[in-house]
Amino acid sequence: MGCTSGIVHHFIFKKISVEKISIIKIGGNIIDNEVNLASFLSAYAAVEGKKILIHGGGKLATKMAADLDIPQQMVDGRRITDAATLKIVTMVYAGYINKNIVAVLQSKNVNALGICGADANIVPAHKRINVTTDYGFVGDIDAVDTEKITAFLQAGLSLVVAPITHDGAGQLLNTNADTMAQAIATALSSKYEVSLVYSFERKGVLSSIADANSVIPIINPQNYAALKESGQVNEGMIPKLDNAFEALHKGVSRVIIGDALDLLALLNGSGGTTIQKN
Amino acid sequence: MGCTSGIVHHFIFKKISVEKISIIKIGGNIIDNEVNLASFLSAYAAVEGKKILIHGGGKLATKMAADLDIPQQMVDGRRITDAATLKIVTMVYAGYINKNIVAVLQSKNVNALGICGADANIVPAHKRINVTTDYGFVGDIDAVDTEKITAFLQAGLSLVVAPITHDGAGQLLNTNADTMAQAIATALSSKYEVSLVYSFERKGVLSSIADANSVIPIINPQNYAALKESGQVNEGMIPKLDNAFEALHKGVSRVIIGDALDLLALLNGSGGTTIQKN
Repeated sequence: MGCTSGIVHHFIFKKISVEKISIIKIGGNIIDNEVNLASFLSAYAAVEGKKILIHGGGKLATKMAADLDIPQQMVDGRRITDAATLKIVTMVYAGYINKNIVAVLQSKNVNALGICGADANIVPAHKRINVTTDYGFVGDIDAVDTEKITAFLQAGLSLVVAPITHDGAGQLLNTNADTMAQAIATALSSKYEVSLVYSFERKGVLSSIADANSVIPIINPQNYAALKESGQVNEGMIPKLDNAFEALHKGVSRVIIGDALDLLALLNGSGGTTIQKN
Repeated sequence: MGCTSGIVHHFIFKKISVEKISIIKIGGNIIDNEVNLASFLSAYAAVEGKKILIHGGGKLATKMAADLDIPQQMVDGRRITDAATLKIVTMVYAGYINKNIVAVLQSKNVNALGICGADANIVPAHKRINVTTDYGFVGDIDAVDTEKITAFLQAGLSLVVAPITHDGAGQLLNTNADTMAQAIATALSSKYEVSLVYSFERKGVLSSIADANSVIPIINPQNYAALKESGQVNEGMIPKLDNAFEALHKGVSRVIIGDALDLLALLNGSGGTTIQKN
């Protein structure tokens, strides 16, 4: 055995290098609803192979701020993360939501490990520098430690990631969950064949917000331009789609946007909107 | 290399089996004070070798409950963990406190991984069964996964543990931090030479509460009986000491109780109260 171990390790490494992984981001509106969250987590537990779940906090953080009488400053529709707000998102995202998801997944035989970007220094970041607006304690991602993440996955652990990062100098930072999912998916594409799923409360990218079934099955650079010009793709979806195209150009194999309650259909290609590189 | 790997592994295993580890529990009154916490964490970062930090939440959870107008039910001086209180301790312990400690330790080159007992199923527990009083969502520990903890430690990670466990059926549970520290220390004594430190705001076990310097240097079964009879050891300290003796009888090498702000002295034997098995 001893003499062959070198070859064995080489073979295992080769195998890992083409292994598939699903990076699934769950949107706030699903987390806000206990029944929907439970339904999503049952589907998530059934996803085969390696997987990582990235969650936001939806309206729970906003509600907590209101309950604590902490005013939320918004600039251009974006929340300013002051010290009090950072404390709330850290409590709600990395504490309440993350640990409840972990406990539910454990009950479904998924050996979940709940972390944020500061844990094991998985996602180092820096406080956003913006000349016109100070967004407060908002983190822009510097790197993703794929070695550590891979080690956790190889140990049979399924990561549940809260979108809180740190600056390496002791400061926690609030980070956009879509961006966190894209950064982790992109980084892992050097080691895995990555499927990135943005799951939320809609069936996919809709050509008409009024029609919940007007799902655009495929978006590629060609029709994307037209969809934006015609205004069929609404403004809120544009950053998500730009994010998706960027992920594809950085090595992610496929990006799907769709209904969190129909997760398995999104992964097997029978539902949602698939974003294509070309 | 391949041919010798078997021997190498055997040697490494032998070495690990007698390696030292420090399990340090930090008391609430230190966590409540930012300056004291920062000072403690600097000392903690300087602790050599493998180490695990277990923290409670002190008055922060109580303050949060008050801020949210959630009444705290107490029975015999013990808080009843109803659903609203469980949500608060999960947010405050596993979220706010745990992640802030992780971020500070990362800034001091300690590769901290913040977890609770549900993460990686490290500490399975069950809801406390009590015929006279229902303490609510309080967890009594069933087991500690020493294999997983050892794997994290071997990967160079230093665990920061929040005293929240789970029942394996999706329910988070509030667990006493002293008990959590004792359970982890006891379980790891099968693989390591364990030093268990209960650090708090006093210099050690005092023979007179009025005199902050009346530290009893050594407590063993002989003088413990006398100290209890004479009432020198106050009631609040008795569960901690019973806990300490139990840990020693279950394989922990040494237990020290003392000042969190003098941590290195506690570990090098020059401070605090040492509890001895015989």
